[in-house]
Amino acid sequence: MRETAIGIDIGGTFTKFGLVDVEGNVLMEGSIPTYIHETIEPFLVALSQAINKGLDEVTDPFEIIGIGIGAPNGNYYKGTIEHAPNLNWKGIVPFIDLFSKYFDLPMVLTNDANAAAIGEKVFGGAKDMNDFIVVTLGTGLGSGLVTRGKLIYGHDGLAGELGHTNVYPDGRECNCGKRGCLETYASASGIKRTVFKLLATNNVATPLRSYTYESLTAKKITEMALAGDPIALEAYDYTSDILGLKLADAAAVTSPEAIFLFGGLAKAGDIIVEATKKSFNEYLYPGYKGKIKIKLSKLMDKNAAVLGASALVWSEIANSDVIRVPQQARAI
Amino acid sequence: MRETAIGIDIGGTFTKFGLVDVEGNVLMEGSIPTYIHETIEPFLVALSQAINKGLDEVTDPFEIIGIGIGAPNGNYYKGTIEHAPNLNWKGIVPFIDLFSKYFDLPMVLTNDANAAAIGEKVFGGAKDMNDFIVVTLGTGLGSGLVTRGKLIYGHDGLAGELGHTNVYPDGRECNCGKRGCLETYASASGIKRTVFKLLATNNVATPLRSYTYESLTAKKITEMALAGDPIALEAYDYTSDILGLKLADAAAVTSPEAIFLFGGLAKAGDIIVEATKKSFNEYLYPGYKGKIKIKLSKLMDKNAAVLGASALVWSEIANSDVIRVPQQARAI
Repeated sequence: MRETAIGIDIGGTFTKFGLVDVEGNVLMEGSIPTYIHETIEPFLVALSQAINKGLDEVTDPFEIIGIGIGAPNGNYYKGTIEHAPNLNWKGIVPFIDLFSKYFDLPMVLTNDANAAAIGEKVFGGAKDMNDFIVVTLGTGLGSGLVTRGKLIYGHDGLAGELGHTNVYPDGRECNCGKRGCLETYASASGIKRTVFKLLATNNVATPLRSYTYESLTAKKITEMALAGDPIALEAYDYTSDILGLKLADAAAVTSPEAIFLFGGLAKAGDIIVEATKKSFNEYLYPGYKGKIKIKLSKLMDKNAAVLGASALVWSEIANSDVIRVPQQARAI
Repeated sequence: MRETAIGIDIGGTFTKFGLVDVEGNVLMEGSIPTYIHETIEPFLVALSQAINKGLDEVTDPFEIIGIGIGAPNGNYYKGTIEHAPNLNWKGIVPFIDLFSKYFDLPMVLTNDANAAAIGEKVFGGAKDMNDFIVVTLGTGLGSGLVTRGKLIYGHDGLAGELGHTNVYPDGRECNCGKRGCLETYASASGIKRTVFKLLATNNVATPLRSYTYESLTAKKITEMALAGDPIALEAYDYTSDILGLKLADAAAVTSPEAIFLFGGLAKAGDIIVEATKKSFNEYLYPGYKGKIKIKLSKLMDKNAAVLGASALVWSEIANSDVIRVPQQARAI
């Protein structure tokens, strides 16, 4: 019987799920809205119903090894979602404890960027790497750092907050309460802020002047950059320069073989990769020069979040002899 | 028979060695000058003779499990010393390969800050920790980062260069070839530069005005700070502010339980610890606040470099079932 894993990616707007085999084939997928559920219980009811409906429609025989969950502010050690600013459920949500009432399967939960990193290792460009970093450039900036083949979780299960390293301590206001964090520059919201700064500073003619702050999206900025708009391109340069600098700092800590860029901004392709490489190599410790690659994620055009979440099962549950299985998963 | 390990700490001026048991008792110790040996072979002859002479004088019976070596720019994977700016031996020195001709024992080599981190875990304040950072504030700034109980070596064995993360990209000239690296501010040489900057900026009366750049030492600055000299204290504040900022960035990557300060500047005690804590907590990701301790190393007054080097044997050779033994060690 085909061994499969359920992958669940919880986002502020939608929660996606899928049934994935060990080769990354998606046998079933679906999604439900997240934001309409003010509390966690109705969300879990809706999610389990949608998953069970999807599973009923899979015709080939399959066995489910476990459930992997990627969630913002996911705590790997505790199976909890902690103070996620973009979710309705405030405080500490004991997600695995609650969700275990709906599925009698081993479960593992981590933050979405960590899930993306595991996805890159199991299904993407890091298959042969033991030391690498995945940076997700979405609404915020997430990061998953792998060393000796395993994610860095830190003492509290919450490591990997590259998005909140300091660029300009007196700089842009960040949702986290600090100022000048990396994600206020290198993220979908960050590049929009940069475009508005450039519109204020320069007189260059650009269709970007016809957008309100609310209506402008990173997707639009990326389209304009790919079409050669000077402000959009300058915004990407500014973003990449800062991103390269802070990735050089992160590389000085973990000396990775490669850094993979993922998420909306990475869709600018060479525009962001080449400029980030240039800045990265300028600020990199000379002892590392020429040794660390900056690349696009190999999961860019796939349902990477669900693949990554399902990959957690292969890396953290199926191989429990080499990688610790969290207590929640063992307890079942 | 008592199990022991030889620890060797190679510094630019002196190379120290000792015979240490698993409880950290030093049965024998000694040192030879490093700088007088223009090439590596005469150095190895002198070192092995000095060690053998020391071993001959130990009266209690003992067994040697292995040799641990801490060296600047030490590469754990290869057993090499690579382009160490403060040593006479240029290029890549295959230290373990060469030294194996003198001792038929398993050997493990890493950089001196990594050895200090292992020393902190085996003999110091990190005995019960699996996630912590040791920062050595010597002539430069070294760092050893431990996660899941193991050092982060990176893909090339050279991870842990916190000293070369970027503070001010157009700032002070660094020996590495870049500008504005952390170690140009937070190190023995960094604080001296800061004192000279403050002497140039302020008119405050201080005995520090009677020193040449060449004659002023970090030790003197520390003594003056402990005695209340305003410029020395301000220099420590400036140093601690920058150190706290960059430690907050490092903590955002690895989420450690504690960060231990070690080396010359750490001898200022509370002066540096309290100011670094203040800055660290100001720049730290709020999700980590209150969870990460900044402390002095527990090996401050001991022969920590030799203890750390010997501890490598206990953590990397004796426990080879849990921690990988490098090829050089296995080959013997």
